[in-house]
Amino acid sequence: MIRSIEWCGDKVRFLDQTALPNDEKYVETSDINVLAEAIVKLKVRGAPLIGISAAYGTLLGLHQHKHSSAGIFLEQFHRSTSLLEKTRPTAKNLFWALERMRNVLRLNSTNNAYTLFDILESEAKAIHDEDRRMCESMGIFGAQLIESGATILTHCNSGSLATGGIGTGLGVIKTAHKAGKKISVYVDETRPLLQGARLTMCELEKENIPATLITDNSAAWTIKQKNVDVVIVGADRVVANGDTANKIGTYNLAILAKEHGIHFYVVIPTSTIDLSLTSGNEIQIEERGVDEVASFSGLCTAPKGAKVFAPAFDVTPNDYITAIVTEKGIHRPPYIESLRQAVPR
Amino acid sequence: MIRSIEWCGDKVRFLDQTALPNDEKYVETSDINVLAEAIVKLKVRGAPLIGISAAYGTLLGLHQHKHSSAGIFLEQFHRSTSLLEKTRPTAKNLFWALERMRNVLRLNSTNNAYTLFDILESEAKAIHDEDRRMCESMGIFGAQLIESGATILTHCNSGSLATGGIGTGLGVIKTAHKAGKKISVYVDETRPLLQGARLTMCELEKENIPATLITDNSAAWTIKQKNVDVVIVGADRVVANGDTANKIGTYNLAILAKEHGIHFYVVIPTSTIDLSLTSGNEIQIEERGVDEVASFSGLCTAPKGAKVFAPAFDVTPNDYITAIVTEKGIHRPPYIESLRQAVPR
Repeated sequence: MIRSIEWCGDKVRFLDQTALPNDEKYVETSDINVLAEAIVKLKVRGAPLIGISAAYGTLLGLHQHKHSSAGIFLEQFHRSTSLLEKTRPTAKNLFWALERMRNVLRLNSTNNAYTLFDILESEAKAIHDEDRRMCESMGIFGAQLIESGATILTHCNSGSLATGGIGTGLGVIKTAHKAGKKISVYVDETRPLLQGARLTMCELEKENIPATLITDNSAAWTIKQKNVDVVIVGADRVVANGDTANKIGTYNLAILAKEHGIHFYVVIPTSTIDLSLTSGNEIQIEERGVDEVASFSGLCTAPKGAKVFAPAFDVTPNDYITAIVTEKGIHRPPYIESLRQAVPR
Repeated sequence: MIRSIEWCGDKVRFLDQTALPNDEKYVETSDINVLAEAIVKLKVRGAPLIGISAAYGTLLGLHQHKHSSAGIFLEQFHRSTSLLEKTRPTAKNLFWALERMRNVLRLNSTNNAYTLFDILESEAKAIHDEDRRMCESMGIFGAQLIESGATILTHCNSGSLATGGIGTGLGVIKTAHKAGKKISVYVDETRPLLQGARLTMCELEKENIPATLITDNSAAWTIKQKNVDVVIVGADRVVANGDTANKIGTYNLAILAKEHGIHFYVVIPTSTIDLSLTSGNEIQIEERGVDEVASFSGLCTAPKGAKVFAPAFDVTPNDYITAIVTEKGIHRPPYIESLRQAVPR
């Protein structure tokens, strides 16, 4: 399995996902700014992986202050989490992970800096390790929804490159395949940054799962012509009523799934659930830069100065979603009670 | 207005659309093979423009045989039209234009080669000129459907770069704008070859029509968030019942329009109508090469050897279409009788 990020005692080592599929380039850094920038630039991406990265990023901001006074350590903690919080607004896991780090600090606040660092390091590793185990569990629950012979459509990347384990949506696909179910997968290339083409196609190839790449705008025709049975995606934030923010194009697929009478599944760890928001209208949707759409590899693909609308995510209303799979089980609509019970207090 | 193709007596001059928006590169050729290859490679594209190009292409195959015997001239005519017919399978206008050339030859078959060439040259110019006038007429009819203040979504390029005039779908938009209606347009970039980003954005900019570029997968979210009122597209082949083949992604948009309760208009000259097919299932859909999706400007965007499904078109069933606009007027469902009457016998 690809190790998207690793903690190496006083630095992190992460795979620069923007260089894939042409280069498998790992970056080692002990500088929180390098990691924060990597999150902004999507070198490290995927909601659960952003959460893990934020936890390790906090450590990067602190490892030079292990021998400082507790006061300076706390100040530096605050500075580090503030920086990381501003990297990307939509993935719940980022805020969730930083909140876990904050909580463990609060519960142990009488300790000295050295001990606090140890405690925070354990918490960050736990966040990473728990994510891996949540992926396994989502895989097992989700695979129950996949019949042998199924043709699946997925979007963006919700695999090892998006998580600390086998993935969310892609974890379900891998688990179904490992269980011997004969499945084939169509992969939306996922413009503008082509995470489907660059990342998901690689992961499926490594697992020997039959996969076919399509442009995003081919999805409707593919569903119809290739008899797609089910759409499976991950998500960046799922709110109390089940409304789901995920990579731009997900809402599009949900409508196509409804129109063709096929299932639409969202697979997420409970760390992606945000019970503080009651509906998807409240989710802050990140807008990306013009260049991500209007140029490719330095070459202009639109007239200079062209106006671009580049939302990174969209919101799929809960009534388009057949089921939400978490590490706790399969949640069916209405989601509000089921999701509330799933989230640890 | 951009002159996408011109007949210059013994050669054609066409704009290489694959080089846009970075280069405005014109190609002059007296070689039918160069023009046929240009159609295959989408240097010249758009159903009506393919028809015009095929008519001029026939002349390129004949201009060296003006002084040959009638027998050799006819043989060469057959060879030329056979070559051109094989360039692309879906756009009806290609076959329609060649059929017009064939008919005029049949009606004048007792003439010598020199006179026949003259007659065919006049017919090709007429095809070009009539297309220009049909665009004007579609514009006037279609603009009646656009209210001032409308937000429009369009796909691919259905403008001057796709026709001999102001365009089909884009012609309607231009005509509405010229009539003083305040409109704004969202433009699907239209993967894989980005005709929306590269071509439509340029045409709208030249006309000073407010335009915003989006990735194709943003269409659903854009319709919802930006209150899009209407989707307008051209088409490559419309069959007897109104089923419509157009650039891949059109069926997708038609479903989104239905789901959001907005209008979906198809704008075509009657030369795009194929009454010989009763339903869209009979339309031959061209599949394009893997590289168009899996690489960009020579750079791999997917793992080497990745399997790709790359249909160039999809078929939108007639019941998703609010109205079809032709140079004859506005056709409402059911289309079968109305389209039959519109097509000249």
